[in-house]
Amino acid sequence: MKAIRNKLLLAAALVSALAFTATVARAADPLPSWNDGKARQAITSFVEKVTKAGSPDFVPAAERIATFDNDGTLWAEQPMYFQAIFIFDRIKQLAPQHPEWKTKEPFASVLKGDVKTALAGGEHALMEMAMATHAGNTTEEFEQIVKDWIATAGHPVSKRPYTEMVYQPMLELLAYLRANGFKTFIVSGGGIEFMRPWAEKVYGIPPEQVVGSSIKTKYEPREGKPVLVRLPELNFIDDKDGKPIGINSHIGRRPIAAFGNSDGDLQMLQWTTAGQGPRFALYVHHTDAEREWAYDRMSSIGRLDKGLDEAQAKGWTVVDMKQDWKVIYPPAKGGSR
Amino acid sequence: MKAIRNKLLLAAALVSALAFTATVARAADPLPSWNDGKARQAITSFVEKVTKAGSPDFVPAAERIATFDNDGTLWAEQPMYFQAIFIFDRIKQLAPQHPEWKTKEPFASVLKGDVKTALAGGEHALMEMAMATHAGNTTEEFEQIVKDWIATAGHPVSKRPYTEMVYQPMLELLAYLRANGFKTFIVSGGGIEFMRPWAEKVYGIPPEQVVGSSIKTKYEPREGKPVLVRLPELNFIDDKDGKPIGINSHIGRRPIAAFGNSDGDLQMLQWTTAGQGPRFALYVHHTDAEREWAYDRMSSIGRLDKGLDEAQAKGWTVVDMKQDWKVIYPPAKGGSR
Repeated sequence: MKAIRNKLLLAAALVSALAFTATVARAADPLPSWNDGKARQAITSFVEKVTKAGSPDFVPAAERIATFDNDGTLWAEQPMYFQAIFIFDRIKQLAPQHPEWKTKEPFASVLKGDVKTALAGGEHALMEMAMATHAGNTTEEFEQIVKDWIATAGHPVSKRPYTEMVYQPMLELLAYLRANGFKTFIVSGGGIEFMRPWAEKVYGIPPEQVVGSSIKTKYEPREGKPVLVRLPELNFIDDKDGKPIGINSHIGRRPIAAFGNSDGDLQMLQWTTAGQGPRFALYVHHTDAEREWAYDRMSSIGRLDKGLDEAQAKGWTVVDMKQDWKVIYPPAKGGSR
Repeated sequence: MKAIRNKLLLAAALVSALAFTATVARAADPLPSWNDGKARQAITSFVEKVTKAGSPDFVPAAERIATFDNDGTLWAEQPMYFQAIFIFDRIKQLAPQHPEWKTKEPFASVLKGDVKTALAGGEHALMEMAMATHAGNTTEEFEQIVKDWIATAGHPVSKRPYTEMVYQPMLELLAYLRANGFKTFIVSGGGIEFMRPWAEKVYGIPPEQVVGSSIKTKYEPREGKPVLVRLPELNFIDDKDGKPIGINSHIGRRPIAAFGNSDGDLQMLQWTTAGQGPRFALYVHHTDAEREWAYDRMSSIGRLDKGLDEAQAKGWTVVDMKQDWKVIYPPAKGGSR
């Protein structure tokens, strides 16, 4: 018994040594894609103070909740929300079963490839198309549809898979926060069931830590096997005021750090920073027309106007993508999509 | 540098040794309040097979989701749901601001102490009372109200704090599952905001792993500080069909194990066991009139009728509280409530 125990202790020590070596290697720079500057310094000094035992700003690990918008914060959102492209692809796929779409707007324009007219009806039109393409199947069927799309679809400009249109510096930030005991959540206006099938693989964020907009579902036994059927009925819009409401509903704890890129994230940042104790709010500002896109106050997608003023007034961290980020996207994975 | 590194390695080895010793001590019996029998054996053999690397039944840790009903499964629910007692206490507290309650049912009966008449209106009456007493304040105010009540109120029969009316064998089961990489969730018909303030301390289940019934909230800036105001409007009922729907909405992953005690949990158990791969379903059967309460098919609270038949037909695990549990409640904490 003693010999076995000694062997186990030795094994434990070896595991520790390996883990320790890995930690040291990583500790060299947890944020290699971030240039040294105000944004990076604000992030690391916040993390250091809330994790330092005995510090007046120490926050217990269980309360280290960090929430991230998705579109424009973790992955790109131009030339339009990727979920809108998914919706268009679904409409084309489903068109044979819907001959009436040939003459019915906004579907007719989508089928003609006229994106501008299709989106002219604004959020209402997009919602109508979402309902028509996201409902009617079971949750498992829809999950598979999303998985198939994300595995094969390519971005209209870069031609890269959407899962490679994510921001490398933000991937590092997510990992850095988790390595420091944070629990990272997505809180997005996008569809919760559109993000969950790939968020764990791409961001390391499991389904139970994804908050988003949703439609209703219905429990139904089918040939003795229960399924959840997706209904064409809105359940919740996780945008603007909806973000703090969604956070309260899903997480039940106020975040200590929140990350966004548009006015749609403003209430989440306000809600986060209004809590007691140390708080952190960050806006990703799209300033890099060359490597990504440059847009803010006048953009119809991801408008950052009021939020930019409030960030300046309140001293929130604003990432200047052009200045602060060494790279935008991770290296291409080639065949491994 | 090398010396420092060696010291750190030594420290790491010592930490491992301590952790190892603690594990060995605990491993002696993770479920000391469970008698050896079919229920206990079913639990441990399920956990062993899904955690055994290389086994055909192995389940990766991220997918080890276990969901627990609360009333009657983790804590007692007799002589009535504890949240109903909370509602009655709130009505008495708020009565001075509501002179109309003196003559308005079901409030009038509550104020006269006539519980039977107050509850005669069934779920509708209870919902009306919940709305009248659970809304109108902010989420933070309500959290404090729950915390104050749970810290001071005593069970009508045992006189013990409600947080000591929890089942010791289930506390051990929760800890045992977590020690084996499971993520434990509450999925209850009770109010989500009624459970979250104490679930972490009592069950080790953090707010983000509590799923329950809810009312709507509204985001509102108050003197420059945003609050979430609780509205007298139903949002979601997390019972029966609502349990798989709530699981899908909050967790987004099908549990591999589910625990309940009534027909209200049946759909959750069906949903859980209908998934592919190894699945586990357990009913707590209240069979101990002496140490707790004995009730099942005919009870108005926590009725277990269809569920008991289905458990027998499908070979789900049924805990016979009288036979399977050495103790019901944890030892009294005395002054430490």
